Amino acid sequence: MTQLISDRRDVDFVLHEQIKVADLCRHDVFSEFNKKTIDMIVTEARNLAIKAILPLQKISDAGCEFNNGVVKVPEEFHPVYKLYCEGEWSAMCDTPEWGGQGMPHVVAAAANEFFYGACNSFMLYTMLTHGAAKLLETIGTEQQKAQCLKNLFSGKWGGTMLLTEPMAGSDVGALTTVAIPRGDGTYSIKGDKIFISSGESNLVENIIHPTLARIEGAPEGTRGISLFIVPKFRINDDGSLGEFNNVVCTGIEEKMGLHGNATCSLNLGGKGETIGTLIGAEHKGMSAMFLMMNEARQMVGLQGFANASCSYMYALGYARDRIQSKGLTDPPGSAPVSIIHHPDVRRMLMTMRAYVNGMRSLVYYANYLFDLAATAQTDEEKAGHRAMIDIFTPIVKGFITDKAFEVCSLGVQIYGGYGFIEEFPVAQLLRDCRIFQIYEGTNGIQSIDLLSRKMEMNGGKPYQALLDLMKKTLAEAKATKGLGDMAANFEAVYNRYRDVADTILELAASDKVLNAYAFSHPFLEVTGDVAVAWMLLWRAVVAAPQCSEKGKDQDFYQGQVKVAQFFINAILPATNGRLDAISRADGAAIEMPDAGFGL
Amino acid sequence: MTQLISDRRDVDFVLHEQIKVADLCRHDVFSEFNKKTIDMIVTEARNLAIKAILPLQKISDAGCEFNNGVVKVPEEFHPVYKLYCEGEWSAMCDTPEWGGQGMPHVVAAAANEFFYGACNSFMLYTMLTHGAAKLLETIGTEQQKAQCLKNLFSGKWGGTMLLTEPMAGSDVGALTTVAIPRGDGTYSIKGDKIFISSGESNLVENIIHPTLARIEGAPEGTRGISLFIVPKFRINDDGSLGEFNNVVCTGIEEKMGLHGNATCSLNLGGKGETIGTLIGAEHKGMSAMFLMMNEARQMVGLQGFANASCSYMYALGYARDRIQSKGLTDPPGSAPVSIIHHPDVRRMLMTMRAYVNGMRSLVYYANYLFDLAATAQTDEEKAGHRAMIDIFTPIVKGFITDKAFEVCSLGVQIYGGYGFIEEFPVAQLLRDCRIFQIYEGTNGIQSIDLLSRKMEMNGGKPYQALLDLMKKTLAEAKATKGLGDMAANFEAVYNRYRDVADTILELAASDKVLNAYAFSHPFLEVTGDVAVAWMLLWRAVVAAPQCSEKGKDQDFYQGQVKVAQFFINAILPATNGRLDAISRADGAAIEMPDAGFGL
Repeated sequence: MTQLISDRRDVDFVLHEQIKVADLCRHDVFSEFNKKTIDMIVTEARNLAIKAILPLQKISDAGCEFNNGVVKVPEEFHPVYKLYCEGEWSAMCDTPEWGGQGMPHVVAAAANEFFYGACNSFMLYTMLTHGAAKLLETIGTEQQKAQCLKNLFSGKWGGTMLLTEPMAGSDVGALTTVAIPRGDGTYSIKGDKIFISSGESNLVENIIHPTLARIEGAPEGTRGISLFIVPKFRINDDGSLGEFNNVVCTGIEEKMGLHGNATCSLNLGGKGETIGTLIGAEHKGMSAMFLMMNEARQMVGLQGFANASCSYMYALGYARDRIQSKGLTDPPGSAPVSIIHHPDVRRMLMTMRAYVNGMRSLVYYANYLFDLAATAQTDEEKAGHRAMIDIFTPIVKGFITDKAFEVCSLGVQIYGGYGFIEEFPVAQLLRDCRIFQIYEGTNGIQSIDLLSRKMEMNGGKPYQALLDLMKKTLAEAKATKGLGDMAANFEAVYNRYRDVADTILELAASDKVLNAYAFSHPFLEVTGDVAVAWMLLWRAVVAAPQCSEKGKDQDFYQGQVKVAQFFINAILPATNGRLDAISRADGAAIEMPDAGFGL
Repeated sequence: MTQLISDRRDVDFVLHEQIKVADLCRHDVFSEFNKKTIDMIVTEARNLAIKAILPLQKISDAGCEFNNGVVKVPEEFHPVYKLYCEGEWSAMCDTPEWGGQGMPHVVAAAANEFFYGACNSFMLYTMLTHGAAKLLETIGTEQQKAQCLKNLFSGKWGGTMLLTEPMAGSDVGALTTVAIPRGDGTYSIKGDKIFISSGESNLVENIIHPTLARIEGAPEGTRGISLFIVPKFRINDDGSLGEFNNVVCTGIEEKMGLHGNATCSLNLGGKGETIGTLIGAEHKGMSAMFLMMNEARQMVGLQGFANASCSYMYALGYARDRIQSKGLTDPPGSAPVSIIHHPDVRRMLMTMRAYVNGMRSLVYYANYLFDLAATAQTDEEKAGHRAMIDIFTPIVKGFITDKAFEVCSLGVQIYGGYGFIEEFPVAQLLRDCRIFQIYEGTNGIQSIDLLSRKMEMNGGKPYQALLDLMKKTLAEAKATKGLGDMAANFEAVYNRYRDVADTILELAASDKVLNAYAFSHPFLEVTGDVAVAWMLLWRAVVAAPQCSEKGKDQDFYQGQVKVAQFFINAILPATNGRLDAISRADGAAIEMPDAGFGL
C-alpha cells in the first residue's frame, strides 16, 4: 500500500471548488499566483512530504539523544531539513523582504497538511521558528529584525517559546523568571523553563528564545510580565555568532509520543549570565505573546488534523486490503471480502472521513481568513476578518485536536490487533496526537476562551457573523436539489444551537456562572460539530450539481453528499442531545462535596 | 500522593450496600464466608496490590526480553508472582478439589480490581492461565485434568489461548493450522499462531496452550475446527515434565503498551513434532472455545475498568494537589487554588467518577450473576442467570473498554503537560488500555454479538429480564425522596431506548439489515450508557436515605446522588440524541461509493 498522507483530490476540492482560492489572485498582493502555480506548489509540497519527510516518521519515534546539555536530533533529520529550507518552505506566506514566498495562507495550509501529516515532530522545529520570526517582524526593534529575521525565516536559526515553568502552566502569571536591567538596555535573565519544544538541538546554528519574565520589582500576575529575546548564542554587531549565552538544557522529557522533537528543560542564568533584550513594551509581555497565539494555536489544530488525515488514509488502505470473513448478506460459504465491506468498518471509515473532511475545510477556511484580511479593501473589512480569525482559533485548536485523537483511535481500531503493534503506523499517530489537546493552552482553556471572550467580543458581532455564514450555506442547501432533507435536519440543530448559545451566555453572566463553565467544554464540542456540519453541507452544495453528470469524478462528488448526509443524520443527533444537556446546565459537578469524589 | 489504585469505600459500597454480597453466604456453597471474611479478603488483596504488584507497573513498561526463542519477563515479576501464587489468589472462585478458594465471583472482582489496576500486564499471565484451567475442568478428560489442573490453578504452570493466525483474526474460521492423527489418539499439530499473550515466558515451569486447529480433511470454516491441548513441555505419565514439545516462539511484538506481557508469535511443529490431545469433541472446537469466552471477555472488561479506576485515582489526587490560578469567582489578586476547584476540571473528574462507578457496579453485578447461578435453587433459575451473563458479556467487554480508554484520556488531560510525560503514571495507563477494545473479539464484534445473538436469544426473554431489572430500580427511585427529577429524566431515555431496541431489531430482520449493522456499535454504546445510568440510579436509591443523617459518610452518600444526577442530566441527553440517530438508521455509510472514501 502506498501511503499518500492525505487525499489530494479532496485537498483540491476544498481549494478550488469550495473556497475558490484562485479568486484571491485577482488582488495585487497575490497577483503572482494563479491556479496553475498553486497546484504546482501543492504538488511539490506533497512530493517532498512523501519522499523525504514521511520516512522520518518511524525514525523520529526513537527520539533525540541528550548528553551533557546537548540535544542531537535523529541524524536523518539533517538532510531533510536542508531540503526543506532550500525549497524555501520555511516562510511560505511571509514577505519577500525577509525571504518569504508571499503565498496565500490557505495554500500554505494545503502544503502543511502534507508536511505535518508526514512527520509532526520534525515539522515542530519549523513551526516554532516561524512563530518567533513573526513575533520579531511584528514588534521587534530594527536591530532585532536585522540580526534575526532572515536567519529565522530561512530556517538557518531556530525559534521557541519560553512560557511554562514548573508552577506556571495554565497559570502563566505565576511565573518567577526574573529580568534584571544591566544598565545598557539589556537584561540579565534568571529562571527555569520547562516543556520547551525544540528548546535545544543540533539542527540549527542558533536558537532564538522569546522568553516571558518579570522585570525586577514588576507587579505580580500577568500584568507584570515582559517579553524578551534570548539567543542561545549571543549575536555580535556584525551578525556573527558570539559566546554561548548560558541557556542550558538540563534534560529532555521521556514522552508518550512526538519523540522526534525534544521537550527541554532550560536553565537561564544559572551557569553564567544569560542576556536578553526586551521585545515590545515593559510589562506588556502577555499581549505581545498573544500576537503569536492565533497562528500558533491554529497550527496546533493543523497538527492534529494532519495526523487524523494520515491515520484515515492508512486505515482506508488497510480496510481495502485486509480480507476477513464473508459479507453479512452473502450466502454461507461465500468467499471472504475486504473488511471495508463490513458495516461496522464502514461506520468507522465514514466517521473518520466526515471529521477529516470537516477539519480540512475548517483549517483551510481559517487560513483563508488571513488571506481575506490581507486583501481587504477597507480597515473595517480587515478588522472583520481578523475578528473572525479570533473566533475560529479556539474551535480549530480545541475542537479539532479533540476529534483528531478520536479519529486516530478509530484508525487503530480498524487495524485490529495490528493497530496496537508499532510495526504498523497508526499506533504512533495516536500517541503523537495526544499532546495537541494539551499544549498551546489546554482544550479546557480553549473552551473558556470561546465562552468568556470570543463569543462576546465586539458586542458579539463576529460570532454573529459566523452564525450568518452558516445560515447562508443553509439557504443554499435548501435551494439545492437532493439536499432538502439534510438541510432541514441541519437547520433544526442549528436553530437549537443558537438558542443554547444565548442560554449559556446568560448563565455565564448570572450567579450560576460556575454551572455555565462546567459546560464550556461541551459547548466548544457542539460548536465544533455544528461547524463541521456546516462545512460538510457547504461541500454537498458544491458537489450535488456534479452528481448527475457521468464524469470520472461522479463517485467523488456523490461521496461528498453521502458524507454530509452521514454526519448530519448519524452524528449530529448526538450533538442535539448535548445541546439539551448544556441548556439544562446541571450543577452536580459544582455542588459535588469534595469527599464525594473519593478518598 | 499515595496511590490507592481504587476507591475502597466505593468498593465496599457496591459489595455491601448495593449488591449485599453477604446474603450469598446464607447458601451452602458460600457458607464459609461472611461479611468479615469478605472484608479481610479485599483488604489482603488491596495490600498485595499496593505493596507488591503496583511497583511492577512502571517496570513492566520496559517490556520483556526475547532471545533465541526464550522470553524473559522483568526480573521483578518473579518474586511477586510467587507471592501471588502462595497467597492462593490464582484460583479464588474455584473448587477446593483443585486447590481453589471457592469464594463468590463478586468478591474476586473486588480483589481483581486492585490487582489489575496495579499492573495489568503482570496480571494477564494469571488471567489466561485461569481460563485454560476452567476449560480443562469443564470438558477435559480425566487424564488431562489429573495432569494439568492443580498445576494451572496453583499458577505453577501457565495457560494461553491459540486462536489467531495472520489471515485469521476476527475470522477465526479461516485458520490453517492442521492436526494430523498419530494413531495413538494424539495429534501432530502444525501451524503458525500470532498475537499470543503470555505465549512464552520464564515465569512458569510449563505452558498449556489450548489450540484451535483443523483435523486433516475436516470441513472448511468454523464447523471444521477442533480444540487441542498442546503443552510447551510434554507431560510424562507420572506428571513430570518431558521433552520440549516444539512450540517455538519466533518473536514478540513491539506494542503501544502492555509491554510487560509478551505477545508472541508461535510456530508449532516446524522444528520437530508438536503433539497435542483433543479436548471436547472433534470439529466442536469453536463451541468449546466459547465455553471460556464469557469469562475471558468479562475479564477484559475488568481490565479496562481497573485501568480507568486507577487513572481516576491518580487524576483526583493530582487535581487536589496541583495549585494553579485563582478560582473563577474569586476577586482579582486572590491566591491560586487547587485545580479541582475549576469547573472544567470538575466536569472531567465527574465524568471519570460517573463512568468508573458505573463500570464498577456493572462488572461486580456481572460477576454476581455467576454467584446467583451457583446458588440457584432450580435449573430454570440457574439458566436465567446464565442467560443474563450472556447478555452482560458484550456490554462489559465492549462498552466498558471503550469508555475506559476515554476515562484514561481524561486522566491525561487533567495532568496537563505532565500527562504526556512518562515520568507520570497516566500516559502508560492510556497506552496499556488501548488493546482492551481490540482483543478477545473487537468491540465491533461485541456490538454484532449483542444485536445478532444476545438480544434475541431464548425468544428475547433474558434481554427483557435485563430491561425489567432497570424498571424495578426506576420504580424504587421514583419512590425515593429527592430522586424524582432524575428518575423522570432517566425514565424518558429508558422508554426511548426500549423503542429503539425494537426498531433496530426489526431493521436487522428486514432487507435493510446492513443499515442496522452500521448502527450496531452506536447501539452497544447507548445500551452501555443506559446500563451505567441504571447502576448509578440504583446507587442513588441506596445512598439518598443516608444523606439526611449527620454521619461521617454524609459526603460520600451525597456524592453518590450527585454522580447519578450528573450522569443522567449532563451525559445521558447525548445518549438520547444517539437514540434518535439509531432510530433514523441513515444508510449513507452503506450507500457510500467506494471512490467516495478517497483514493
